[in-house]
Amino acid sequence: MATTAPEEPTIGDIGEFGLIDQVRAQIGDNRHVLIGPGDDAAHISTKDGSFLVSTDLLVEGRHFRRDWSSPHDIGRKAAACNLSDINAMGGVATALTVGFGAPADLPVSWVLEMTRGFEAECAHVGAHIVGGDVTASDKIIIAVTAMGDAARPVLRSGALPGDVVAYAGQLGLAGAGFAALSRGFRSPKVAVDAHRVPHPPYAAGPQAAGAGATALTDISDGLLADVGHIAEASSVAIDLDSSTFVVPEAVTTVSDALGVDALTFVLTGGDDYALAATFSSQATLPDGWTRIGTVSDGAGVTVDGKAYEGITGHQHWR
Amino acid sequence: MATTAPEEPTIGDIGEFGLIDQVRAQIGDNRHVLIGPGDDAAHISTKDGSFLVSTDLLVEGRHFRRDWSSPHDIGRKAAACNLSDINAMGGVATALTVGFGAPADLPVSWVLEMTRGFEAECAHVGAHIVGGDVTASDKIIIAVTAMGDAARPVLRSGALPGDVVAYAGQLGLAGAGFAALSRGFRSPKVAVDAHRVPHPPYAAGPQAAGAGATALTDISDGLLADVGHIAEASSVAIDLDSSTFVVPEAVTTVSDALGVDALTFVLTGGDDYALAATFSSQATLPDGWTRIGTVSDGAGVTVDGKAYEGITGHQHWR
Repeated sequence: MATTAPEEPTIGDIGEFGLIDQVRAQIGDNRHVLIGPGDDAAHISTKDGSFLVSTDLLVEGRHFRRDWSSPHDIGRKAAACNLSDINAMGGVATALTVGFGAPADLPVSWVLEMTRGFEAECAHVGAHIVGGDVTASDKIIIAVTAMGDAARPVLRSGALPGDVVAYAGQLGLAGAGFAALSRGFRSPKVAVDAHRVPHPPYAAGPQAAGAGATALTDISDGLLADVGHIAEASSVAIDLDSSTFVVPEAVTTVSDALGVDALTFVLTGGDDYALAATFSSQATLPDGWTRIGTVSDGAGVTVDGKAYEGITGHQHWR
Repeated sequence: MATTAPEEPTIGDIGEFGLIDQVRAQIGDNRHVLIGPGDDAAHISTKDGSFLVSTDLLVEGRHFRRDWSSPHDIGRKAAACNLSDINAMGGVATALTVGFGAPADLPVSWVLEMTRGFEAECAHVGAHIVGGDVTASDKIIIAVTAMGDAARPVLRSGALPGDVVAYAGQLGLAGAGFAALSRGFRSPKVAVDAHRVPHPPYAAGPQAAGAGATALTDISDGLLADVGHIAEASSVAIDLDSSTFVVPEAVTTVSDALGVDALTFVLTGGDDYALAATFSSQATLPDGWTRIGTVSDGAGVTVDGKAYEGITGHQHWR
């Protein structure tokens, strides 16, 4: 059943982004969609208003490991990556649904701890689980949909030449923690902990929207890739100034130990769920936002005026 | 990792409904929730209005089989079971998100056909996919969340003694089709097709709400189980009159061939996504609704005044 003639392309052949493009072409126009697929969350009109919605599918062994993370941590991270998508529109999540699949021999206590972690993370923004579904499956599956409100949803597509680029949150910490864990280390603790439980800057999204951000996204694929999404959606060029990045000490510790450039973690590490935004050069950046670059006419992302020759963001099946 | 000390209960020990009860106890109160977990969909308030939301997690080999159903059929069914949850509140779905997991060797054409089937089913109510996530996984996973509007959401909990019970849609057809397929048959076609692609009565939910239905649910676990959910939520007793059931001919064909009572399929078969509702005895039932029982003081569901001694609805891990 899983075999296929060599001439028929598989999803592994075209990769995650190729598949998303082809699937999107099958989807009809929707009069209820104010902002559709392609941003951090969709913005949907209702009979009397609107809401934001985003979804993530997490699978054991790919997005989390039971031997690396406690169920409480896994629940927190599953919530965080979805709450971050609403944050990345300048919104605040209010309600989440969870589809949960697991094998029959999973202890009940594992599920309850995971749920407590999920709810603890949601408490940062005042959201809760409002519905769910459970099913038997070989591996643990956590399918989360987050919904929320935004006074003014901020897209990826509004950056203008002359704008400044800024970020809020941590850069590279979770990526360094993942690299350390992958090589069998359990330290530095701050990096490993950041991989297990990210700390998205939940206040920063609505603050950026309030301060007039022209574009906004969260950094889940890595700074370079996600700033690249803003550049592409806005049809602009972005140059980042590496001297302005705040590199966490633990990132330097891991990069030194592994003999890699700390900049690699900062530019390509995902999973910290920081935010990147563009603002008019006249705007006052809210507290917690650091200016790291500029927007100009053109296309693509450069670092210190040059193309960055490092690895790029993660893609499934590639 | 998956092993557990014998004294620690597993989710297999307590079953799907036991797990849902324990998880629900971990979830805090939510000021955004007008109707929370425990009905067909949740009803969530927004800054300027409200919406309905429900989620389902479908896993290959448990909810669908690639050798039984085409990708188009699988997409239609994945949409149908979620659209039905919004229908079961008297609402109309407007927007759906899809989390999709699959192995790398899955043909791209499979995903596109599945998407086309999904969108074709959504077209029945005017809804579309508004967002999604894709990931690598060993088996195909389809995690769907449906959102929608309702002028007046109808709960399971409003049935009153003296009300009548009615249903809209098909009873037992998909269950008979599943029984036939399970035994290696590919006919009767109408039953097998109903298992592959259900035909929920999408107009009937809003019609029931408009006609003043006091309680409403969809029949996904089987008529007996789902009418039981109304009886429990409303703290009433329900008696069904088996002489009023419209038994599809294909159900009789399958039950005769397998030597089982046709009533078993009608009372316990899920997957047709029919609707069951209660109405005041003075109400005029909308077209397509058939009266099948009565509500009285008490508890539990009886058939022709007696407890039904058949198998009950499906539960995961049991």
